Amino acid sequence: MADRLFGTMRPTLIPTLKQIVEESNTHSGRAFDLVVQGLIILSLIAFSLETLPELSEPTRSWLYTFEVFCVIVFTCEYLLRIYVATSKTGYIFSFFGVVDLLAIVPFYIGTGVDLRTLRAFRLLRLFRIFKLVRYNAAVRRFHRALLIAREEIILFLCATAILLYLASVGIYYFEGDAQPDKLGSMFHCLWWAVTTLTTVGYGDTFPITTGGRIFTFIILLIGLGVISVPAGLVASALGKARQMEESEAREKST
Amino acid sequence: MADRLFGTMRPTLIPTLKQIVEESNTHSGRAFDLVVQGLIILSLIAFSLETLPELSEPTRSWLYTFEVFCVIVFTCEYLLRIYVATSKTGYIFSFFGVVDLLAIVPFYIGTGVDLRTLRAFRLLRLFRIFKLVRYNAAVRRFHRALLIAREEIILFLCATAILLYLASVGIYYFEGDAQPDKLGSMFHCLWWAVTTLTTVGYGDTFPITTGGRIFTFIILLIGLGVISVPAGLVASALGKARQMEESEAREKST
Amino acid sequence: MADRLFGTMRPTLIPTLKQIVEESNTHSGRAFDLVVQGLIILSLIAFSLETLPELSEPTRSWLYTFEVFCVIVFTCEYLLRIYVATSKTGYIFSFFGVVDLLAIVPFYIGTGVDLRTLRAFRLLRLFRIFKLVRYNAAVRRFHRALLIAREEIILFLCATAILLYLASVGIYYFEGDAQPDKLGSMFHCLWWAVTTLTTVGYGDTFPITTGGRIFTFIILLIGLGVISVPAGLVASALGKARQMEESEAREKST
Amino acid sequence: MADRLFGTMRPTLIPTLKQIVEESNTHSGRAFDLVVQGLIILSLIAFSLETLPELSEPTRSWLYTFEVFCVIVFTCEYLLRIYVATSKTGYIFSFFGVVDLLAIVPFYIGTGVDLRTLRAFRLLRLFRIFKLVRYNAAVRRFHRALLIAREEIILFLCATAILLYLASVGIYYFEGDAQPDKLGSMFHCLWWAVTTLTTVGYGDTFPITTGGRIFTFIILLIGLGVISVPAGLVASALGKARQMEESEAREKST
Repeated sequence: MADRLFGTMRPTLIPTLKQIVEESNTHSGRAFDLVVQGLIILSLIAFSLETLPELSEPTRSWLYTFEVFCVIVFTCEYLLRIYVATSKTGYIFSFFGVVDLLAIVPFYIGTGVDLRTLRAFRLLRLFRIFKLVRYNAAVRRFHRALLIAREEIILFLCATAILLYLASVGIYYFEGDAQPDKLGSMFHCLWWAVTTLTTVGYGDTFPITTGGRIFTFIILLIGLGVISVPAGLVASALGKARQMEESEAREKST
Repeated sequence: MADRLFGTMRPTLIPTLKQIVEESNTHSGRAFDLVVQGLIILSLIAFSLETLPELSEPTRSWLYTFEVFCVIVFTCEYLLRIYVATSKTGYIFSFFGVVDLLAIVPFYIGTGVDLRTLRAFRLLRLFRIFKLVRYNAAVRRFHRALLIAREEIILFLCATAILLYLASVGIYYFEGDAQPDKLGSMFHCLWWAVTTLTTVGYGDTFPITTGGRIFTFIILLIGLGVISVPAGLVASALGKARQMEESEAREKST
Repeated sequence: MADRLFGTMRPTLIPTLKQIVEESNTHSGRAFDLVVQGLIILSLIAFSLETLPELSEPTRSWLYTFEVFCVIVFTCEYLLRIYVATSKTGYIFSFFGVVDLLAIVPFYIGTGVDLRTLRAFRLLRLFRIFKLVRYNAAVRRFHRALLIAREEIILFLCATAILLYLASVGIYYFEGDAQPDKLGSMFHCLWWAVTTLTTVGYGDTFPITTGGRIFTFIILLIGLGVISVPAGLVASALGKARQMEESEAREKST
Repeated sequence: MADRLFGTMRPTLIPTLKQIVEESNTHSGRAFDLVVQGLIILSLIAFSLETLPELSEPTRSWLYTFEVFCVIVFTCEYLLRIYVATSKTGYIFSFFGVVDLLAIVPFYIGTGVDLRTLRAFRLLRLFRIFKLVRYNAAVRRFHRALLIAREEIILFLCATAILLYLASVGIYYFEGDAQPDKLGSMFHCLWWAVTTLTTVGYGDTFPITTGGRIFTFIILLIGLGVISVPAGLVASALGKARQMEESEAREKST
């Protein structure tokens, strides 16, 4: 369809459109990006407002109208992006191509279907938010830091998983009989382990026996150490990434 | 007015006054600073005491007298600062010029107005506290570290905002029907997301369904990683700032 | 027994078996490792499922059958490991030799004994999980970082213990009379100190007197500092370990 | 008294005693230190046991006997330390001299006085615990790191104090009328600010109005940044301290 619409004016229009849609170093390109990103944020706020239980009918219909408007704009944007892409299939099956599609598809599928089922699909609209990340240049340093610390992060995730499991088993053994309704199965205990070792501590489940409390003390002492690891990893990796960037810049200037 | 008062003794007084008011490397300058800062802290404590509900009438009037005394001193200080400033308008419209004015203005405007309305304006008196920051020299290293890590901090704030939004949507989807009074709208869910991802965990709202708990576990695992980022950023930036300072000092000595 | 079984085919089989069981750089070795690790995780999940209170009889018996299957596989694996080990007693008394044995022994001892007593012993089966750690190569950098920061970590643990003790005594003095049921003995206070200084804050015990709250404020200010130490230690040690690795790599290439 | 007791055997005994009491690089010196430190820990445990409310009379008297024994040993140790000190007044008025005295004095003053009053003084016995810190050599690196980061730590403490004050004022303004019993005065609000910004979050006080929750969100975002600062400071300072140590060691070897 996009091909048919813009087909006749191809020779001169495509390079200009491409610049506007895909790059952000010209005035019109920057304006296009700002409008799209602003609309994404507004549609996310509208989604939040829709969940308020005591909304009046006019507000609800106004929000629906705004949603229709957003979907139309995002659909045009999606078609435009396909149109100007150097490799059309390359864009469609890229991460952001899929996200762009998922951000509009639920609306078209949703019409006519029961609203309750629709709600689950509408979550997909949130992928739209990932677009916000697309443009930022400072992501690269983080990306590099993540690559540097990749092995340690996987190791840390394994250690966390093992620690959570051991904490659950321990508390199940100590508190399982004392609080059968709150810590009566491994899955309840796992929930306790997650809220405790992340130091969230909602207070819905906590040990009451002496053994359970001493065990919690020991597991927290180890857990605090584990929790401090990612901070150390990130600090070390960021320092390294910065150093690599500088030495690269120095090499270029030489 | 300040001009008229001190006008006749100008030639010899201004440089001395300027030194006392604006600098803190002489004995009298340091004494002036200490008195003003001490009075600021005392007035802040007095403000805190005023909020106690069961205060007796004599205490209340004593606190009011002290407040009047503070305002008089701060007004004199403000006029003095204008008087000795090299560029009068430069001082008045600088950050601390505005803060100094806001610290005394509510009192003059407040008299005669309803006390309840006044309370909102009295908050402005707190800007007075920023004066405490003015004098410290070690701020500079932090300032430099902030400048170095500026892009990463903005990126981290964006990532935090996106994570909070996604966490809210997820918990709304999992728990919205199970706890309509506590997690029934996106704004309730956002409150849950804030208290959980900062690991505060008041315990007023927490997931109770299995799906909600698994989702909380996953979002906390990611959230812990995000929370460890600023510590890494600050560590990396401070190390860099220290290094820059040293190389500058080395260059100077050469 | 293992000797008798495989005794006749020794000359050609042992080196191949050794490669499969002890190394993971061949296709068959990697497959062996993946199967064993997968089975360990499955048996841990089965253990978790067994703790669910409302399990039906068929599920329970199915889980028991799976447990029997796991124990048989792990026993074969244990015997194989002894068989191919260069030093048989060296393997049996090594950390993982003991863990491998403890992962299967409870089952054999448990049959015929009361199930309630068995439960305590079944915890030992969890040592099986440590096997998961065995194969990972990235552990070494952490190990080195731990060695570098060993003294500081011990010191930090001492400081934490002293701080916890002082916090307990302080809160006992301030709140012991006000909340005799919750903070009436040093051990209750120690529990409060642990949940507070780790910032878990379940909310089951908290100070209510003014003195206790001011004390909590001061101890938290110090405690936050102490809690930030391990993150700093790990960051500093990991940076150092990375640097040592690089200089070693540079020396090798020269 | 110590002088009179050991007076006659002075010429040969003092250097040996000095070595045992003040140093820990000989066998007897290490044994002396270990005995004293073990006794300190045991007496601290005994103090904890004494606070248990349901203690039987025999246990109580046994604990008292142990306390008498500890005080006698610590008194002998104190006199010994004075006796072997090169500068007697130097030791008595040093930090550990005062701590050593405070660890035994309450017992002698306490006999005959009402037990309830005594309890406050017994807290001083806890200073005994500081002795545990005395011997460790790894303290020096931390000490150096603290000296390096001194200015930043003071600045961080000021920033924390200002942030706590501003958070209290804000929540008082937003929630003071909605929850007069929990957040009705600046001091209640300060308690809320402390438990929230340290992310302890007991759950005894939390905002319920929309304004209060948005304010909490903003203050937590800033607070999390502030909380990550000490971790960064410590990491940066420890790295620097390690570097200084190494360059000193290199200079020595040259």
